[in-house]
Amino acid sequence: MPDPIQLTKALIAAESVTPATGTVFDVLEQALIPLGFRVERFLEGEAPDGPVENLLAVRGSGGPHFAFAGHLDVVPPGQGWTSNPFGPEIRDGLIYGRGAVDMKGSIAAFVAAVAGHDAPGTISLVVTGDEEGPATYGTPMLIEHMRSRDLIPDLCLVGEPSSAQQLGDTIKIGRRGSTVIWIDVPGRQGHVAYPHLADNPIPRLVRALSEIDAIVLDDGTDWFQPSNIEPTDVTVGNPAGNVIPGHASARLSIRFNDLHRGADLVERIREIVLRHAPNAIVKGTVYGEAFLTEPGAFSALIQDSAEAVLGVRPELSTSGGTSDARFLSKLCPVVEFGLVNATMHKLDEAVAVADLEALTRTYAEILRRVFA
Amino acid sequence: MPDPIQLTKALIAAESVTPATGTVFDVLEQALIPLGFRVERFLEGEAPDGPVENLLAVRGSGGPHFAFAGHLDVVPPGQGWTSNPFGPEIRDGLIYGRGAVDMKGSIAAFVAAVAGHDAPGTISLVVTGDEEGPATYGTPMLIEHMRSRDLIPDLCLVGEPSSAQQLGDTIKIGRRGSTVIWIDVPGRQGHVAYPHLADNPIPRLVRALSEIDAIVLDDGTDWFQPSNIEPTDVTVGNPAGNVIPGHASARLSIRFNDLHRGADLVERIREIVLRHAPNAIVKGTVYGEAFLTEPGAFSALIQDSAEAVLGVRPELSTSGGTSDARFLSKLCPVVEFGLVNATMHKLDEAVAVADLEALTRTYAEILRRVFA
Ligand SMILES: [Zn+2]
Ligand SMILES: [Zn+2]
Repeated sequence: MPDPIQLTKALIAAESVTPATGTVFDVLEQALIPLGFRVERFLEGEAPDGPVENLLAVRGSGGPHFAFAGHLDVVPPGQGWTSNPFGPEIRDGLIYGRGAVDMKGSIAAFVAAVAGHDAPGTISLVVTGDEEGPATYGTPMLIEHMRSRDLIPDLCLVGEPSSAQQLGDTIKIGRRGSTVIWIDVPGRQGHVAYPHLADNPIPRLVRALSEIDAIVLDDGTDWFQPSNIEPTDVTVGNPAGNVIPGHASARLSIRFNDLHRGADLVERIREIVLRHAPNAIVKGTVYGEAFLTEPGAFSALIQDSAEAVLGVRPELSTSGGTSDARFLSKLCPVVEFGLVNATMHKLDEAVAVADLEALTRTYAEILRRVFA
Repeated sequence: MPDPIQLTKALIAAESVTPATGTVFDVLEQALIPLGFRVERFLEGEAPDGPVENLLAVRGSGGPHFAFAGHLDVVPPGQGWTSNPFGPEIRDGLIYGRGAVDMKGSIAAFVAAVAGHDAPGTISLVVTGDEEGPATYGTPMLIEHMRSRDLIPDLCLVGEPSSAQQLGDTIKIGRRGSTVIWIDVPGRQGHVAYPHLADNPIPRLVRALSEIDAIVLDDGTDWFQPSNIEPTDVTVGNPAGNVIPGHASARLSIRFNDLHRGADLVERIREIVLRHAPNAIVKGTVYGEAFLTEPGAFSALIQDSAEAVLGVRPELSTSGGTSDARFLSKLCPVVEFGLVNATMHKLDEAVAVADLEALTRTYAEILRRVFA
């Protein structure tokens, strides 16, 4: 039976900044094969966003089908670590290394948990090498692959570090969607003494931003805080005090709940801008749609398992940025439950050895209840 | 009697980019001494805006006192001239050189005109070496000097190139005022996913700019077009799409007529900005107050003189940027009347020899009528 501590260290030691391929997947595959998993690995995409390695490991057959999803890529370590970010080190009961909590530790915990599990049904691991990047060649490709193999899970647990202060205090049952919108208003340059010969783009942009500022997208829902529009940049770049500029632009970021779709929001902003500046160019990128797994049997099972093992009943949350759960939510109910995220993406990222062991026991309890 | 063509060429040949001192003033002084002028010259200011040379030349005594005002400094020539900008050259009836129309040519024309004039009264030349720059050490210092000497003119003609298409088509009887206002709105930086922890300065700035955009300062007057506020720059400088910026700023330019004072406008903008952004910093620089010499006997005398000599009756105008007339208007009625401004501040600045001669005759006619 694999030891979650050793496996976490082995995964950290396999450097895997996004997009990840190769050794780190070898380490995982070598842990899964002895447990009876059929492992499929494939590469997708080209530089600079690829190639990305994806791994689908399946054991058993028939229902229920429980999937554990995660990623083996990590964000760049940055400068200033106490020890080598890719040379895992245990100090004072903590394993230090990039990916310790996000999320090599929870993958190791799940592998260890599944080793002790033998009820009938299907268990799969859905693991990508690009969650921290654009994700284009990551989980969406795994989902396509699963659809083509007719391997649609009934339930999916994403092992992202959902815990805030203490292991098990939070389950994420949804995430807000995210879109960034670029607004570009052309005008006609001129001298401030002759405004009738110019077309100042700034007042047009200000009127549009002012109308956008007044939008109340919603008042929040039972499970989501209100959707929110933030202007994050305005650029004119005109050094000359007596010149009317020929150009003004702005950027908005919208975080939205499941009452909205990204494309509709972009369209709504575009309509407002074009009303004030008919020649404006409005471009939106939707980084993720909002999703919600309505609280129910699945989230209750996770809560009950955590409470039984950890003595903590997790709260249900939809806060934070996007995750791959937004893709997986199209297949089946999906929740996120994992380690404490306090050090994720930071210097000296670390996981408590005790947390790794407790998470292993909690994942085992979840499997026991799902397959009961 | 000085030849306006030769004097124009001699003045152009004395390179005198703002702030101007020395040789170019020597040339003018040497032309004035034989005409009976008492010439006083003094330096004011230090680098980088100084030293600036100023010249006051006075002939005669008693009333009426007629002043001709102008500047011997020029704007930098820039690259791409057909001939040396400081090596005056006549081609096809035009004298080419920096300052030809703005305004060494009109100074030469006035000197030539005054040479043939001998009626009783006082004639003065008020000539600075910094009109094109900040003017701090220029005409305001000359005015101080004139006050201290009790040499306040009854009428003042500024020799700026007021003509638009044809010599004599326009007299400027006023100028709009000008102020530039800088608005700086501090906020608190944060992540777009957690807007409650941040304070986005952009919506505050947008609300202020939106309110400013709605201001109608006035509908114009008999002699002035409406005052106008133009936002000329907005800067945030935030490259990160998911970050709420900590800072936003804007710049406004206001051109205003004689219904307003610069400081009051700055105060009005400040009040609006502070209402939306109590921590904002609003700074204004008033480059010039509006002034108007109400059309009357003086402007009519210039119009009549121009019509008699040139066959063109000048229109009265208040268009264009600021000029030193804004300072001189505090002493007495002041109008601007000079050469065609089509090439001023441009490459291959040039004055027609015929225009120089015609302007000389017109200035002579003005003197004749003033002292009649
Ligand atoms: Zn992650
Ligand atoms: Zn000038």
